[in-house]
Amino acid sequence: MNARHGFYYEDLSVGQSASFAKTVTEADLVLFAGVTGDTNPVHLDQEFAESTMFKGRIAHGMLSAGFISTVFGTKLPGPGAIYLSQTLNFKAPVRIGDTVVATVTVTALDGKRRATFATVCTVAGKPVLDGEAVMMVSPRPKE
Amino acid sequence: MNARHGFYYEDLSVGQSASFAKTVTEADLVLFAGVTGDTNPVHLDQEFAESTMFKGRIAHGMLSAGFISTVFGTKLPGPGAIYLSQTLNFKAPVRIGDTVVATVTVTALDGKRRATFATVCTVAGKPVLDGEAVMMVSPRPKE
Amino acid sequence: MNARHGFYYEDLSVGQSASFAKTVTEADLVLFAGVTGDTNPVHLDQEFAESTMFKGRIAHGMLSAGFISTVFGTKLPGPGAIYLSQTLNFKAPVRIGDTVVATVTVTALDGKRRATFATVCTVAGKPVLDGEAVMMVSPRPKE
Amino acid sequence: MNARHGFYYEDLSVGQSASFAKTVTEADLVLFAGVTGDTNPVHLDQEFAESTMFKGRIAHGMLSAGFISTVFGTKLPGPGAIYLSQTLNFKAPVRIGDTVVATVTVTALDGKRRATFATVCTVAGKPVLDGEAVMMVSPRPKE
Repeated sequence: MNARHGFYYEDLSVGQSASFAKTVTEADLVLFAGVTGDTNPVHLDQEFAESTMFKGRIAHGMLSAGFISTVFGTKLPGPGAIYLSQTLNFKAPVRIGDTVVATVTVTALDGKRRATFATVCTVAGKPVLDGEAVMMVSPRPKE
Repeated sequence: MNARHGFYYEDLSVGQSASFAKTVTEADLVLFAGVTGDTNPVHLDQEFAESTMFKGRIAHGMLSAGFISTVFGTKLPGPGAIYLSQTLNFKAPVRIGDTVVATVTVTALDGKRRATFATVCTVAGKPVLDGEAVMMVSPRPKE
Repeated sequence: MNARHGFYYEDLSVGQSASFAKTVTEADLVLFAGVTGDTNPVHLDQEFAESTMFKGRIAHGMLSAGFISTVFGTKLPGPGAIYLSQTLNFKAPVRIGDTVVATVTVTALDGKRRATFATVCTVAGKPVLDGEAVMMVSPRPKE
Repeated sequence: MNARHGFYYEDLSVGQSASFAKTVTEADLVLFAGVTGDTNPVHLDQEFAESTMFKGRIAHGMLSAGFISTVFGTKLPGPGAIYLSQTLNFKAPVRIGDTVVATVTVTALDGKRRATFATVCTVAGKPVLDGEAVMMVSPRPKE
């Protein structure tokens, strides 16, 4: 058995939940822009961003989506699970200094290695991103 | 009119398409881990990753999703558009050294500022991620 | 009680252990140099490094020390514990491409919130760094 | 003789000292998390950090330890010296915006290539980290 592996399929139950939280910094926007190439001025150009309905720079939506991936990859199900799909509804902007809490909750288990999760990111309790994900989770290896 | 703004709603037509491509590096994985907190060993730990079905480290799926966001935010529709939703189907792993090409194509315009896009990321012509996105695109301002 | 908190003092027992592993990349050396300012050529200058007993670039020793901190901060005891002290004996170089496994094991509990840990980093099973750490771990809050 | 080499053993004397200082930024915390994998929320999650005795985000202790390594690797003894051991006593938190001054001072020379150093990091003159290090320093090569 692999000590670095996360939960196995048998370990999951509907309602099980885990979270990851991170305060979004200017550095995150710069680095996310560098890594993805998304140099949209709404993220990097305070003057442009002030001219939009957001009235200032906002974080990349995919950064919040990344926090969901963090919960999957590090907590529930954790290492070894395979990301099959994710839907993302962007509800509200995330600003520099906001602490985003990403939470995933098991909503269905099909009995055949697939687990469905409700996924939500909140700032101060208000949803900024929600959706649904499906992960493939391997069963516990036989000894 | 704002010279830093992208396409307006009237500028869009079904079938219009744009792409962004980037070669994925080890540095991207390290930085993406730092920005998102996703330290899943399948991305960072070659020994663990070799023990999985992927037989080596793979990129974060949300990194490829980020490349789709890059096309939206910088090319089509470009700055000023608002990301409403995205679906993501992860089809195949992306490895260090792979060049990911993200392409978005207008598939529907509802006449009320909403544009629907087919979104796909490919490596060597093979889809690694696909899905659909909806953007809100503002009309050209009256002079 | 705080859902983001790690183990409480009562949760710990002698012999308890946790690990974190990461493959060291060139990007890690560049970024570690940038963040710390440690531009020692043995890490960044292949020509200089080849002239030393190491015969090539090696990772910063404090990068491996950082992996120990990762186990403490994310796994055992996890968030909420306070790092009081750490001793570090550098035993062997770490090279680009090496997968470093950092492991901490509880060796003593003084009954007064202090936990002592044996700490070791290995590459392919061989110690590259060892030492001892003391953490202060808060007791489970009364309900 | 190698122009990129630092001090040789004969160049060292008890009391000799050198320093490196750096202002700690949010970007340092994000990057240090990515490089080490240490995503402890006390470094990244302002809400969690405010719930702790630190009342806000603090820097990774190993970042300050890294600044000590910077002095050794770039100033005294400089390139070519080999880090044998380091003890670290974490005395006080370092916050974003703090300028950390790392200072090393030769305290003993054993005559056989080993130099012992007192090491301290201060913020506004107050120690945040202290300890002792031993370096192996090669003698000046014969011409």
